[in-house]
Amino acid sequence: MKKKIIGAVLMIAMVLVLTLQTNTILKEDNGTVLASTNSTTPKYIFYFIGDGLGTSQRQIAEYYLQETTGDKTRKLTMNIFPHSAINTTHSLDTLITDSAAAGTALATGHKTNNGVIAKDAEGNNLKTLIEGAEEKGMATGLVTTTRITHATPAVFASHNESRGNENDIAADYLDSGIDYIVGGGVRHFLPTNFTDIQTDAFGGKISSKRKDDRNILAEFIKAGYKVRYGLKGAEEFRGETLKKGDKYLNLFTTSHLPYTIDDDNDTQFYVPSLADITDKGIELLSKDEDGFFFMIEGGRIDHACHPNDPSGTIMDTLAFDKAIEEAYKFYEKNPHDTLIVVVGDHETGGLGMGVNTDYFLNLQVLENAKMSIEEFQGSYTGNRETYYRLIEEKFGLTDLTKEEKTIIDKGMDMVDKEIIDPGNAYKYDEAAMAVTHVLSERAGVYWTSYAHTATQIPMSAIGVGAQKYNGFLDNTDIAEITAKIAHIELN
Amino acid sequence: MKKKIIGAVLMIAMVLVLTLQTNTILKEDNGTVLASTNSTTPKYIFYFIGDGLGTSQRQIAEYYLQETTGDKTRKLTMNIFPHSAINTTHSLDTLITDSAAAGTALATGHKTNNGVIAKDAEGNNLKTLIEGAEEKGMATGLVTTTRITHATPAVFASHNESRGNENDIAADYLDSGIDYIVGGGVRHFLPTNFTDIQTDAFGGKISSKRKDDRNILAEFIKAGYKVRYGLKGAEEFRGETLKKGDKYLNLFTTSHLPYTIDDDNDTQFYVPSLADITDKGIELLSKDEDGFFFMIEGGRIDHACHPNDPSGTIMDTLAFDKAIEEAYKFYEKNPHDTLIVVVGDHETGGLGMGVNTDYFLNLQVLENAKMSIEEFQGSYTGNRETYYRLIEEKFGLTDLTKEEKTIIDKGMDMVDKEIIDPGNAYKYDEAAMAVTHVLSERAGVYWTSYAHTATQIPMSAIGVGAQKYNGFLDNTDIAEITAKIAHIELN
Repeated sequence: MKKKIIGAVLMIAMVLVLTLQTNTILKEDNGTVLASTNSTTPKYIFYFIGDGLGTSQRQIAEYYLQETTGDKTRKLTMNIFPHSAINTTHSLDTLITDSAAAGTALATGHKTNNGVIAKDAEGNNLKTLIEGAEEKGMATGLVTTTRITHATPAVFASHNESRGNENDIAADYLDSGIDYIVGGGVRHFLPTNFTDIQTDAFGGKISSKRKDDRNILAEFIKAGYKVRYGLKGAEEFRGETLKKGDKYLNLFTTSHLPYTIDDDNDTQFYVPSLADITDKGIELLSKDEDGFFFMIEGGRIDHACHPNDPSGTIMDTLAFDKAIEEAYKFYEKNPHDTLIVVVGDHETGGLGMGVNTDYFLNLQVLENAKMSIEEFQGSYTGNRETYYRLIEEKFGLTDLTKEEKTIIDKGMDMVDKEIIDPGNAYKYDEAAMAVTHVLSERAGVYWTSYAHTATQIPMSAIGVGAQKYNGFLDNTDIAEITAKIAHIELN
Repeated sequence: MKKKIIGAVLMIAMVLVLTLQTNTILKEDNGTVLASTNSTTPKYIFYFIGDGLGTSQRQIAEYYLQETTGDKTRKLTMNIFPHSAINTTHSLDTLITDSAAAGTALATGHKTNNGVIAKDAEGNNLKTLIEGAEEKGMATGLVTTTRITHATPAVFASHNESRGNENDIAADYLDSGIDYIVGGGVRHFLPTNFTDIQTDAFGGKISSKRKDDRNILAEFIKAGYKVRYGLKGAEEFRGETLKKGDKYLNLFTTSHLPYTIDDDNDTQFYVPSLADITDKGIELLSKDEDGFFFMIEGGRIDHACHPNDPSGTIMDTLAFDKAIEEAYKFYEKNPHDTLIVVVGDHETGGLGMGVNTDYFLNLQVLENAKMSIEEFQGSYTGNRETYYRLIEEKFGLTDLTKEEKTIIDKGMDMVDKEIIDPGNAYKYDEAAMAVTHVLSERAGVYWTSYAHTATQIPMSAIGVGAQKYNGFLDNTDIAEITAKIAHIELN
């Protein structure tokens, strides 16, 4: 009897303990998704990086959706996650980071100088989340819409003093152990004089940028990878059945994958979307009983922001969000084992959702854009009438005001006289810059820079351990918190 | 003996329960402050609103501190709070809110049209957090660096179809029951032909903007308030001893309080800082055994951003943060009873911490600024040499490059010809705008707008219930969450 009483008291104690644990499930009253604050280790980790994804980029894509669909309740998936933090982005040597230093912070938890790939300022290798996940036996994936050797993916699986050494970075991936590698940039994997009669997935010529005879693709095959590339690689991608334990490399294009806006308006070629790539990655990686760490970069948001392209930015942000949706569907099926983290690496362009003295946006005008500004560059070739017809066709810029014409004429003048604005150090086509600035202003937005900015950026998370991301963090904290949640060791 | 065993088991159970409760204190590993997630109702609530406070404003002030002190670890107090959220700011009628609609959302939990003060679009009054706190018997405070009748304070204690009706708003405060009202804007409290031989606290002439004979100050005295104003009010402020139950109104200036940068560089006049005002408010309000709700606005951050004034923005953000520091000191003494919330209402100016194609900021140059751009307006009066000497003296703009001179000369040309840029609808002095844009560019920053922008903005919180603010919210959610935490009823 006494034992029963002691037992009953112990039961009550346990119930109390369990009740309190259950109470740590946060109640959100604002329509955001409820998330368990389950304290176990997540088995499946998605690490989404939107390159150039600041507050304005996350907001303009959402408002564009709302304005063009008329549904004012539409939200980006990344913007409904219940946990969020704000983080600083500065690198070791400057307040305005590049993607190499920011990526290194997000991949390793350490600051480094701009341009450096997963090394500290003294040149020591820094262990990355993917390397740590490999040590734990987890399956790993690395995908992007840029060249796979570009800074953000590079910092997760290679080490180099300079982001420019993409040929070395390609070779460095050979012993990375990554199970699923998909993106663009086959040019760094082919021997120097390699010629291929097939095109890349977006119709470009396949060629090499290597300066040696190494065929990295062949070396990947030797290392046990299924290797695909170019148009054929893209065509085979959808139907591809990947088995447990497969290692897979597919690089669809010579350089970056096309902008979403260009791909969407192209009828000839099919390039798998970041959502497709994510989906296929989940299919393979989730077969591993040790779980996975999957880095997914929306890399061309930044590329669109650099030449101040509002439609290009929005479309690539929406495509990035669709990839997050795929992860979210997986989370819904595996809520007690999954963590999804969505971060940016820095803001690009100083995108302001407001221009002059106006209190209205007019984002609908951006629906008329049918081409990225990067692709559009070089379109002015001396004939002004042709150019005006072209900007009407490609960007819906009709009924130009006197002021708008002055801006565009000035851009063409600069091209004619081969003048570049001193602030335009990337030497973007001034006639195209004039067009994108007129288009931006019509939409009610504007830009302060052709480069990155130093502002704080938002991140969000859902799933196992997601409540650990909160408050004002540094980008290095994001890696450290992730490592701690996942029990991955960094140095 | 058996009883002892049962007692011991019960003790263990209680220890377990207490341990788990203690565990709900979030462990932060990133240098941020630890905060209790105590679930009781906060007795003392600080509601800080930084007008125009977006990510760039919160970041530039912090980086400025770091760069000018050389201490790279310096943080704004508002940026060390352990909890944060990101929120949308759009109003009912447009994606770019004004302070009236944004303030109404933050004060009442409801969307309304731009320009409307705590009413819905149909004209119904919306109950505010201060009104709800009054109903609960809490002491209340309302302070700002702007006119006390300006939109942000107005939405907490008055109801009007238009923010422009500041005379009505002043009268509306009479039955607000607020215990502590301090700021600027005595002009809306004095009868129409009132003349006063004293100056205001910053040397301005005291005059009335009322169109009737009501002496609202006298009515406040009749309602039981200690009433002070002008230079005398400012002089008496420091030494003022406030007793439990006192009601206090002090309006230092005819219109807004001076910008911090102007006050700091002025040797003649003394205007109490927002930190002083906050401190004195705490002294009075904390005497009430029912606790308090204290709204504190840093209202001139926005005012500095409108004419794109980087130094003015930074200095008023730092002054706002010093006020938050006062609240934080109070929190440290009363951690289990205090909640501090810091929000913005919208971003202003489209401030980008990066310009052209540069990856460096040079915020130190802003140390040379000795005057707000608003005060500087009108300084060019026809003599260019004098103007160049003046911008050297006031902003440290020496060794101007050819490009910089071209920009400033163009500004002076526009003043000479009485031309205003079409995007400059507020008709800011174009010569002053040229100066602030040259200064901004030297600092490595730039602006997209003379008005507000639609980007998401950050908020942060510490103390009792602070963990409830998380994820991506709307500005209305901030009011609703606060009301729920504080058990204040809104409609």
